[in-house]
Amino acid sequence: MPENSMKVTVLSGGIGGAKLVEGLASVLPATSLKVIGNIGDDDEFHGLWVSPDIDILTYTLANRVNRETGWGFEGDTLETLKILKELGEDTWMTLGDKDFAVHIFRTAARKAGKRPTEIALHMARKFGVNVPLYLPSDDLVPTRLLTSGGWLRMEEYFVRERCAPEVTEVRYENCEKARPTPEALAAIGEADILIIGPSNPVLSIAPILAIPGIREAIIKSRAYKVAVAPLINNAAIKGPTCKIMASLGLSPTLKGVAEYYHGLIDGFVIDASDTKEQASLSSENIDIYTQNILMSTLADRSKVAEQLLQNLANAVNPGQTRRQKA
Amino acid sequence: MPENSMKVTVLSGGIGGAKLVEGLASVLPATSLKVIGNIGDDDEFHGLWVSPDIDILTYTLANRVNRETGWGFEGDTLETLKILKELGEDTWMTLGDKDFAVHIFRTAARKAGKRPTEIALHMARKFGVNVPLYLPSDDLVPTRLLTSGGWLRMEEYFVRERCAPEVTEVRYENCEKARPTPEALAAIGEADILIIGPSNPVLSIAPILAIPGIREAIIKSRAYKVAVAPLINNAAIKGPTCKIMASLGLSPTLKGVAEYYHGLIDGFVIDASDTKEQASLSSENIDIYTQNILMSTLADRSKVAEQLLQNLANAVNPGQTRRQKA
Repeated sequence: MPENSMKVTVLSGGIGGAKLVEGLASVLPATSLKVIGNIGDDDEFHGLWVSPDIDILTYTLANRVNRETGWGFEGDTLETLKILKELGEDTWMTLGDKDFAVHIFRTAARKAGKRPTEIALHMARKFGVNVPLYLPSDDLVPTRLLTSGGWLRMEEYFVRERCAPEVTEVRYENCEKARPTPEALAAIGEADILIIGPSNPVLSIAPILAIPGIREAIIKSRAYKVAVAPLINNAAIKGPTCKIMASLGLSPTLKGVAEYYHGLIDGFVIDASDTKEQASLSSENIDIYTQNILMSTLADRSKVAEQLLQNLANAVNPGQTRRQKA
Repeated sequence: MPENSMKVTVLSGGIGGAKLVEGLASVLPATSLKVIGNIGDDDEFHGLWVSPDIDILTYTLANRVNRETGWGFEGDTLETLKILKELGEDTWMTLGDKDFAVHIFRTAARKAGKRPTEIALHMARKFGVNVPLYLPSDDLVPTRLLTSGGWLRMEEYFVRERCAPEVTEVRYENCEKARPTPEALAAIGEADILIIGPSNPVLSIAPILAIPGIREAIIKSRAYKVAVAPLINNAAIKGPTCKIMASLGLSPTLKGVAEYYHGLIDGFVIDASDTKEQASLSSENIDIYTQNILMSTLADRSKVAEQLLQNLANAVNPGQTRRQKA
């Protein structure tokens, strides 16, 4: 099966996942790629609905993202936030003026009764994104983190507290009541390849998997399922992945990540430099792919995606049911 | 009674009224001046509550207003609006990035159950305004204008249609159910001088007077009541005052304005150049004051206010009940 006719669906968090998705979008036709983003860090600021990971994916795919930070609009300004601060508001969550337009639009559209998934799709289309970017659920499933200072919302932990507090428990609130979107289920069901992006397993991927029906759909899917490691040499490329895995009693290693995805993945893509770790993964009974996965430059993103698709092309055999993991 | 110990309350619309209020604030102690602003042009844009006249008063008194336009923040930018336009929103209502902060704050505070008057006072205080700026009501009393194209909201008529359509009827919607704020009633009741600012009588002052209890409080008040003409040589200093008065069958003249305020005012302040019109006002049985009322420069505002207070000082006789108009 030629790589560019394979249907690829990616589960993605923010910056790391968005890099891979951007790479895949640069080598796959738009009709072959679908993305399911994380909504666990959605939150309300100043009465407006902010969806940080979805916005990162949208801005990145629109080539409008701030390339220095990986989040926010390129060339954004902070006039609105400065005045909100003057008015006495907490402004630890950096929201730019262009960014505010997205939050204003989203909030008004939700208030008008539009489905969150349709709002996200509308905004992405208006920004010129032709890769479908789906929400896993139209319901609210906010991630909560237990710290010595009590329960924090995701962005309180991530931005306000700069990931400093020790996290002893994570909850995906309301997830038992949430329903998956038909778009997400279809994107999983029709995929030839399902990729779990190089995102924080606990904070970016688990909130997607926690929505009833999503994990089941992945297990049932005939897709070849693969996770791209969020760690290189057992250190997170960005963010608190290792720290939070350790504090939750998970092994902050490639093996720990593979165990976290046990039963979900057929393959695991790790960095070519991780030769030492490779042996530790043998007990997981999954295919291991080694390649460069560090995406520092824009060119890296395409190269990593291209290499990834080449590696997986052999594993994909359309017309036959994919082998199921025990 | 010395001018600066008189309690002065002003009913004001946007730009014209704000100029006079700014002048009064520059010559009176903050404890002597109170302002009741117009909320008839309040409206929702992009799901956010915008209060154009209240914002003009706030920004002007805070010395933060755009001095070229008379509305909006000085040095404001339009990043948020540009993105909202990209997202497909109607953006004929110019809202700057700093401005958006005010609308975001107001909307969130209302949603949180705060009284609109308290929100307006909070914002003015945070911007350094020490003149109390009250809403006439915490309820919604949107002005509606009937045109050949149907009923328009105030800002649709004023901004989107640039006052072009002929207006055949004006309604102050919901006004029969609205309640006046205690702050506005107290400011009227305690005033030694009550000034109706040089604002559009139909579109800026009438929406205040339409709130049940406000007109009655003015009539009962012991204050000396005076209107400052919104016309010079029978032309509006700014805006569609003459045009809209004519299309509603009112005389678009100083006499027409005096008639419009019949029973409400003891005195009428007209421009010194309006000698011809003065005779036509004799039948109104009100005191006529002539002085310069054109406020082109910042210095003009103080001079006009100072002259106005000097003229009115003689009319004010504290300790006695003010004469009541028949």
